[in-house]
Amino acid sequence: MSSIRFYNARILTMKDGFEVIDNGVLTTDGARVAYVGAASGEPKERKYDREIDAKGNLLMPGFKNAHTHSGMTFLRSFADDLPLDRWLNEAIFPREARLSEDGIYWSTKLAVMEYLTSGITACFDMYLKPYAIAKATEECGFRCVQVGGMNNFSQSIEEQEEWYDRLNGNNPLSSYIFGYHAEYTCSKELLESLSALAHRYNAPVWGHNSETASEVEGCKERYGMTPTELADSIGLFDNGGGGYHCVYLSDNDIEIFRKHGLYIVTNPGSNTKLASGIAPVSRYIKAGIGLAIGTDGPASNNCLDMFREMFLVTGLAKLHDKDASSLDGNDVLYMATVGGARAMGLKDSDTLSEGKYADLIMIDMSKPEMQPVNNITKNIVYSGSKADVKMTMVAGKILYEDGRFHIGEDPEIIIREVDKVIGAMR
Amino acid sequence: MSSIRFYNARILTMKDGFEVIDNGVLTTDGARVAYVGAASGEPKERKYDREIDAKGNLLMPGFKNAHTHSGMTFLRSFADDLPLDRWLNEAIFPREARLSEDGIYWSTKLAVMEYLTSGITACFDMYLKPYAIAKATEECGFRCVQVGGMNNFSQSIEEQEEWYDRLNGNNPLSSYIFGYHAEYTCSKELLESLSALAHRYNAPVWGHNSETASEVEGCKERYGMTPTELADSIGLFDNGGGGYHCVYLSDNDIEIFRKHGLYIVTNPGSNTKLASGIAPVSRYIKAGIGLAIGTDGPASNNCLDMFREMFLVTGLAKLHDKDASSLDGNDVLYMATVGGARAMGLKDSDTLSEGKYADLIMIDMSKPEMQPVNNITKNIVYSGSKADVKMTMVAGKILYEDGRFHIGEDPEIIIREVDKVIGAMR
Repeated sequence: MSSIRFYNARILTMKDGFEVIDNGVLTTDGARVAYVGAASGEPKERKYDREIDAKGNLLMPGFKNAHTHSGMTFLRSFADDLPLDRWLNEAIFPREARLSEDGIYWSTKLAVMEYLTSGITACFDMYLKPYAIAKATEECGFRCVQVGGMNNFSQSIEEQEEWYDRLNGNNPLSSYIFGYHAEYTCSKELLESLSALAHRYNAPVWGHNSETASEVEGCKERYGMTPTELADSIGLFDNGGGGYHCVYLSDNDIEIFRKHGLYIVTNPGSNTKLASGIAPVSRYIKAGIGLAIGTDGPASNNCLDMFREMFLVTGLAKLHDKDASSLDGNDVLYMATVGGARAMGLKDSDTLSEGKYADLIMIDMSKPEMQPVNNITKNIVYSGSKADVKMTMVAGKILYEDGRFHIGEDPEIIIREVDKVIGAMR
Repeated sequence: MSSIRFYNARILTMKDGFEVIDNGVLTTDGARVAYVGAASGEPKERKYDREIDAKGNLLMPGFKNAHTHSGMTFLRSFADDLPLDRWLNEAIFPREARLSEDGIYWSTKLAVMEYLTSGITACFDMYLKPYAIAKATEECGFRCVQVGGMNNFSQSIEEQEEWYDRLNGNNPLSSYIFGYHAEYTCSKELLESLSALAHRYNAPVWGHNSETASEVEGCKERYGMTPTELADSIGLFDNGGGGYHCVYLSDNDIEIFRKHGLYIVTNPGSNTKLASGIAPVSRYIKAGIGLAIGTDGPASNNCLDMFREMFLVTGLAKLHDKDASSLDGNDVLYMATVGGARAMGLKDSDTLSEGKYADLIMIDMSKPEMQPVNNITKNIVYSGSKADVKMTMVAGKILYEDGRFHIGEDPEIIIREVDKVIGAMR
C-alpha cells in the first residue's frame, strides 16, 4: 500500500460546514487518510511514496452517485426524444434482453471512466449480473454499492440473498443492499418476501419510488395506497433504506420517510429529460429527510455528471418554489458528498477525516469558471464541470489524473468493447 | 495569415441537417474555410503551415453565446441564493457602479477564456464601456457582437450612434447593434428616440424582453400593453432585431415577433437560477420564430457554458410541455450554432462552408461521455461538457487547444487582475 502527501492545498473537509482550509496538507496511508488539516499542524515529517504540490487547488470528498444503472452506457444516445413508453418498450427493453454478462462488464467500465472524470468516487448501482459489475468496478479500483433490482421477471429472493452474502465483506470496494425495481413491476407477494428477507438480516431496502404521476395513480388503483404506503404497510422499510426519484410523495409518504429515517435520492437530469416532473426537494429538506443525488442511467440522462445534477437540484428547486433563495447551493454540495455516502452506507467515505477512506478529488482552481474565488463552494455548484476535475482518488489510489486513467485497462479497449456490444444490436 | 489542414476528421457542417462526414478534410486559408468535405474530394495537395490529424474527432461550427454580460465575471459567486431584488440592489448594482474601464477589460478577458473552453466562438455582449470590451475581445482574437444596453441612467442615443459608427467595419471580429436594457428601465421617450435612430440606419434593435412575470405586469400597468406591444407600437422592431429571455410572451407578442422576423434568445440557466420561469420554447419554434441560446451573465448563471444551456433548453421544454419528445436535441444544437449566428448578424459564421469564417471547434470523441457513438449530435447535446472541447478556432486562429490558451496574454495575469477588481470591493 502506498502513501501520498498533498501540500499547498486548499481543503474542504465537509466535517464542519463549508469552511475551506488554506495552505492545508493531506496525507494518506494505504486506503485511508492519515492527516488532514493546516500545514502548521502536520505531524513531524516522514517519507511518502509521492508528494504532490496542489498549487492552491482544492481537495474535497469525492461525489457519490447515489442512483445509477452503470451498465446502460451501451445505450447512450440510442433513442432520445421519444415518449417514455416508446423509449422503454421499443428501444431499451428489447436490447437489455440481449445483453450478456460480458456486455455489462465492459459497459460498467465505461461508466467508471466517466464517473472518475466527474469526480465521482462511488456509485449506488442497480443493474443486472452483480458479479460482472463487481468484477468491473473492483478491477478499476472503484467503489460500488450494488442494490437489488428485483421484479416479477428477473432476480429472485434467493439470488438477492446469495449476492448479499457474497458481495458484502469480501472486498472493501464492494457492498450489496437489498432492493426491488419498483412497486409497478413487483407483485405484493414478492415485496412481502423481500420484507421477510430484510427482517431476517435487519437490513435496509431500496427501490424506485414515485418517479411519475402515473406510477402513483396506478398503485392507488391497485391497492388504495401510494407506493410508499404500500411498502410501509408490509414492513419493507422497518430497517431503513430509501427511494430513488421520489418526485411525487404525499404528506403521509414524507412522514413515513421521516419516521423510518429513509433517504431520498433525487435524479433531476433524468426526471427532466424524461419529462417526469420536478421533485419538491426543499420540502423534503424542511421535513428533515436525508437527501442524496444520482444521475440515473446513461440511457435516460444521458451523462453521468454530478456537476450538471447539482446545478439542476438547486435550479429546479428554485423554479419549483418560484424563489431564487429556496435551496442554497451548499446544501446541494452536502447532498452530493456527505448525503450520498450516508444513504449508501459508506460512513467511512463521507468527509475528509483522519482514519476514513481517502475517497477524494482535486478541483483545478486555475480554470476560468473557478475564478475569481469569491466563494469556492458556490463556484463548484453553480459553475463547475467535469473540466475542473484534476484528480480523482478512491481508497488512496489515484484512478484519474490530468486527463489520464489508471484503472488497469486501456481506455481504448473499453471503448472498442462497448462499441461491439451495441454494434451487434443496432 | 496562416493555413491549416485537418484530416481524419468527422465533420458536422450544419449545412444540410445533422449528417456527419466520416474521414473528412477541412482546410483554412487565413480567416476562412478553403475546403470542407470528404477526403476524396479534396483539391490537389498544397502546402499548409500546419497539418492536424483529427484522429476521428469531430469538427463542427463553434457555439454562439447569443446573450451575455461578459464583464460581470468579477461578480461570479459573489451573492448567490438571494431573492432577485436583494441580489440586484444589494450585491450587483453597487459594485457595478464602482467598476472601472480597466476592470471591464480584464473581466471580459476572463469570460473569453471560459467561452473558448466551452467551444464558444462568438458572443452577443451587452455591457458597459464598449471600447474596453472591443479591445479585450479583439486582443484575444475572439468574435464579439456588442449591443447597446441603454437605460434612463446610462448610455445615450448619441453614444450608441458613435459606437455604431466606430465599432462596425473596422475590425472583422467586432460589430455593434443598437439596443436598450429593458422596457422597465427606459422611458417611452428614450425608446422612441432609439426607434428614430434605428430607422435612420435601417438597423435592428435588441433588448431584454419579458424576463419575469412582474416585468410584463408592470408594463401593462404603465401602458396597457406588453413590453413587445409597446416596442412594436413605436416602431422599434421595424428593421428587425429581437429579445433576450422572452419567458412570458403572449400570443400577440409571438405574432409581432413572427411578423417582423425577430429572434428570441433563450437563457435557461439564468431563468432557472433566478427562478424567473421556463420559456415555452417549443411554442416559439412551432410559430416559426428564429431561436438562439445565451448564458446570460456570470453573476446570474454563474458559468458561461453552452453545454449546460443546451441540456436545459431541451430539458426544460420537456418538463414545461410534460412530453419527453417535445423538443428534439438536434433542434437545440441548431439554435446554439446556426440560430445564434443568424440572430447576431454573423451570416459568415453559421455553418462550416467554403468561403465562410473558420469559426469552429473540435470535439474529443475519445471522452467516455462521447461513447459509444450511437448518435454524435445527441451525445453532444445530452452528454457533452466543456471537458469534450479539444480545440476552439476563431477566424482561422486556434485560440484554445488541449487545455492551453493562445490569446496573447498569460491566463495567470488575467486571473490575478480580475481578483484585484473584486478584491477592492469585497
